[in-house]
Amino acid sequence: MHRLRLENVGVILVRPAIAGNIGATARVVKNFGLSSFILVDPQASPSHPEAIARASGATDVLERVIVYTDLETALTPFQYVVGTTCKKRYKKTRYFPREIAPLLTAISQQNKIALLFGPERTGLTNADLYYCHTLITIPTAPAHPSLNLSHAVAVVIYELFCQAMGGGVSWSMPPLATAAQLEAMYKHLMQSLSKIGFVLGGENGHTYRVLKRLFSKIPLTEADVRIIRGICRQIDWFSQQK
Amino acid sequence: MHRLRLENVGVILVRPAIAGNIGATARVVKNFGLSSFILVDPQASPSHPEAIARASGATDVLERVIVYTDLETALTPFQYVVGTTCKKRYKKTRYFPREIAPLLTAISQQNKIALLFGPERTGLTNADLYYCHTLITIPTAPAHPSLNLSHAVAVVIYELFCQAMGGGVSWSMPPLATAAQLEAMYKHLMQSLSKIGFVLGGENGHTYRVLKRLFSKIPLTEADVRIIRGICRQIDWFSQQK
Repeated sequence: MHRLRLENVGVILVRPAIAGNIGATARVVKNFGLSSFILVDPQASPSHPEAIARASGATDVLERVIVYTDLETALTPFQYVVGTTCKKRYKKTRYFPREIAPLLTAISQQNKIALLFGPERTGLTNADLYYCHTLITIPTAPAHPSLNLSHAVAVVIYELFCQAMGGGVSWSMPPLATAAQLEAMYKHLMQSLSKIGFVLGGENGHTYRVLKRLFSKIPLTEADVRIIRGICRQIDWFSQQK
Repeated sequence: MHRLRLENVGVILVRPAIAGNIGATARVVKNFGLSSFILVDPQASPSHPEAIARASGATDVLERVIVYTDLETALTPFQYVVGTTCKKRYKKTRYFPREIAPLLTAISQQNKIALLFGPERTGLTNADLYYCHTLITIPTAPAHPSLNLSHAVAVVIYELFCQAMGGGVSWSMPPLATAAQLEAMYKHLMQSLSKIGFVLGGENGHTYRVLKRLFSKIPLTEADVRIIRGICRQIDWFSQQK
């Protein structure tokens, strides 16, 4: 299984109008470890104070941003161009990011991929879309499909980042108590609870099942078992004092 | 297969400090069709002009936002609480949103789920995390893990929205040309190209394979086939004129 190569993916904002969105996108680019950030004919400056404020710790990305006056020149080194749109375009197939991710993973192995994001108010024009090999649309509630520009970038790159990680999981279960340790705990619990008169349903068999149903929901470790048996010992001691 | 019930999911911002983030989060909440948006002890007003500007078309969500002074009261109606953090917490298992999504799908069928997001500078405190059944962390580049607050909300809700959609795809391939139509097209192409002396590799067999390798990459429709055969007919006409 190949993993998506994020180092071959570039983010291109086409005619962005709001400085804050340029800064916020720089931050997202850094959050997900991309290296290529490009602006085409920006209507606001990447060195505007609002851009710098919203970039937070990613001002280095802002300083390295490459600015082109036209899209065609910006796309020169890229082999595959992905456009983002929330509009329905006649006769253009649109994919969800998650659907297209396996294809982009394959392409990214030996090709540079450009992700195009259009201006805040209008999105990419048809002229922009002519450069695109494929179009993606972020799934949203139908009533309000237009995401903020930097949010759209965040969601698309997050999806690609998940592909770049492969199916890796973030955690591992710690070592759990053995069946023998658990059975000894249940036996101890039953004995201690019976000493203080706690017998559910009037018979030991039922109490055992109830306790087991409760505690088996928790992946108990050896340390957890020690705590529960500590409580049992305290019950044992207390019941002898009375 | 159950689908995640988004109507049972609430977004709670704990002590948000920046009005713009409250507004941007309201927009995200509306983008993905959630209904429950809650602030706990906000340090900025949801009616601040910056919040309203960033909410864009979601000022109705801002107007309906419910404000509590403490987290415990805000959590009263929820059965399951999910905290978000980018920090490593001692002995706390953290999941990626995509890992925990199947569990949240199951829980959401009959329970209300709260998603907690902490303040911009510090994130959720240990006291906040005590209310959480589970913790999630958005996967990021290790060097710069801290997402903007509203971006973190966008990524987590996007993930849940994908679960709510099920495995649905966004598109269907239009009806394609049949094998018979394609073979007739290849035959026509071969004849027309030979009329103008285009024979790759010096023999017809090789040309056929080259053309087939090229055109089979494209899912051709009947309309596409008509266009290609139209070009062939023009070549036929032109070659007779000379």
